[in-house]
Amino acid sequence: MTSSGDRKGAVGDGETVFAGKRCLVTGGLGFIGSNLALALNNLGAQVTVIDACAPHHGGSVHNLSEDGGEPDPNIAVITADIAEVSDPTVRRAAVGAEYIFNLAGEVSHVDSMTDPLAALNSNTTSHFAFLELLRNENTDVVVVYTSTRQVFGRPRYLPVDEDHPIAPVDVNAITKFATEQLHLLYNEVYGLRSTVIRATNIFGPRQRLREHAHGFLPTFVRQALQDEALVVFGDGLQERDCLYVDDVVDCLLLAASIEDAPGELFVIGNDEHLTLRAIAESIVDAAGSGRVEFGPWPADRDAIDIGSYFGDSSKAKRMLGWQPRTFFDEAIKHTISFYRARYAWYL
Amino acid sequence: MTSSGDRKGAVGDGETVFAGKRCLVTGGLGFIGSNLALALNNLGAQVTVIDACAPHHGGSVHNLSEDGGEPDPNIAVITADIAEVSDPTVRRAAVGAEYIFNLAGEVSHVDSMTDPLAALNSNTTSHFAFLELLRNENTDVVVVYTSTRQVFGRPRYLPVDEDHPIAPVDVNAITKFATEQLHLLYNEVYGLRSTVIRATNIFGPRQRLREHAHGFLPTFVRQALQDEALVVFGDGLQERDCLYVDDVVDCLLLAASIEDAPGELFVIGNDEHLTLRAIAESIVDAAGSGRVEFGPWPADRDAIDIGSYFGDSSKAKRMLGWQPRTFFDEAIKHTISFYRARYAWYL
Repeated sequence: MTSSGDRKGAVGDGETVFAGKRCLVTGGLGFIGSNLALALNNLGAQVTVIDACAPHHGGSVHNLSEDGGEPDPNIAVITADIAEVSDPTVRRAAVGAEYIFNLAGEVSHVDSMTDPLAALNSNTTSHFAFLELLRNENTDVVVVYTSTRQVFGRPRYLPVDEDHPIAPVDVNAITKFATEQLHLLYNEVYGLRSTVIRATNIFGPRQRLREHAHGFLPTFVRQALQDEALVVFGDGLQERDCLYVDDVVDCLLLAASIEDAPGELFVIGNDEHLTLRAIAESIVDAAGSGRVEFGPWPADRDAIDIGSYFGDSSKAKRMLGWQPRTFFDEAIKHTISFYRARYAWYL
Repeated sequence: MTSSGDRKGAVGDGETVFAGKRCLVTGGLGFIGSNLALALNNLGAQVTVIDACAPHHGGSVHNLSEDGGEPDPNIAVITADIAEVSDPTVRRAAVGAEYIFNLAGEVSHVDSMTDPLAALNSNTTSHFAFLELLRNENTDVVVVYTSTRQVFGRPRYLPVDEDHPIAPVDVNAITKFATEQLHLLYNEVYGLRSTVIRATNIFGPRQRLREHAHGFLPTFVRQALQDEALVVFGDGLQERDCLYVDDVVDCLLLAASIEDAPGELFVIGNDEHLTLRAIAESIVDAAGSGRVEFGPWPADRDAIDIGSYFGDSSKAKRMLGWQPRTFFDEAIKHTISFYRARYAWYL
């Protein structure tokens, strides 16, 4: 188990690449963003995070605590929407960055269906404004954007690779697809070095567990920790390839480091495929609390369910040298311990 | 040659389907929208058009003139952005419509690169607001949305069909793709009966010819009419399948009429493929003025050029019973005559 504290050396020559570099993480108080910001900090980077702290998105300064104490003082925090490009603080951070990990956005599929215009604003309009700023004032920057496997919709074949047809099944996916394509277009047309990562179900420390949790994984973790029923919708035989957040952070760092990555899009998933039922059982085992129950799909989720999904990471392995290193049973124990130790912040 | 005046009967039982029906055409003062509005009017529909009359988009009440005189008084005109869903006039038209032909949006690929946020606003944000209104207050409506072949980018194979990969090469295509997918999503999730048509290079009467003309076809027509050089970029051997606007109008009417169309996406193109050079020569022949010259690609267009393109209309032929009925040489003569007769309005 790699905690962000002992990541040094985990990512090839990551320490050399990022040491002393000005790295900006948008959405950097959120789940993946905060884990990434801590990792960059440990690699010696000068880290700034921008986060709009939108309600229900899960962004919190507590996420920037390495050990459960105060947030790391070496990481600069700007509370703003990335769309506020005329805000001098946002502008300075964006224009001065050598690396931008662009993770800001809506994270809830269900919320995106309830309020499509809000999702469009968070996931697309903000990024259009932000990329315009970069196009005009910082084309030397390296950008990595995190998209979602939801852009594929119901898989036509498994595992899903980069050539799989696009059929977004929710507003979140529609709006994130527009933004990932804008990143690739700006790479092609304006030379902005952008790479897109389409990731799958991610879990681990620093994820929002409360109401409006994003997806079944944090919901299950919360239910187990609170000794409640983990309700598996349907027969629970749909397969998923859950990715531990440290593996995602590794991939983002590699994508920013590898010279051939800009202009490319990568699907990443885990080589380990588990049924939803097995995932729920594993979480209950790790927690020593909660129980697995089965129930029908709620109407608002049924419409966006996609069946089994797992990704083909061959391209990321080949071009980025990335490899998922974490098995679910092991990682979920670490995850449960993390939340038990910081119960008041996350539950 | 079918003019909109003698379309009756051209579209199967179009007269029966649309007679007396409340039909709304968004972008209805523009090129395709105005031709469609006149056709619907001739089929006996109660036609309302909404148009934001955005600068350079080509919307004009002159387009609603059948014979070169006054605009047809039977067609109601609302000057507004479809995003203004709290405007009582817009709201009443949208909520009361039985058929909506949703054509509003940015039309210039080059402009979309210059001002991506404006294109996003026209092509996406407005439509997200408009579809939310329909979802909440008029799910019985039948909607047909016009997208663009630019969502495919540079063709990986020809002819391009509905399964061709998505790789938008400009902001116009990125923003229109988001909106077409929202239409299909609302069909799937909320039962809003929406059909998407991805059309190719369209030409004919009522197109904007002046500066900011959309694409090479109106530009060539203007240059020929003004006895200027038609500059073909590169060797001019790229092929295109130009669609006459009457054929597109036929397809939109069929898409709204056929019960199985909602939820489907159709690529339409012409069976006749012509090189850009042949197209330019044909326009000069028809006009009896202008001349064809060759020149290098300008920088802003080179980045978004897609090489040869032609579409595979098999699905539209099979499911909609649509068939392009017009050959270029014939249609361009009619087009040239139209603009000669209305020179002051279009040039």
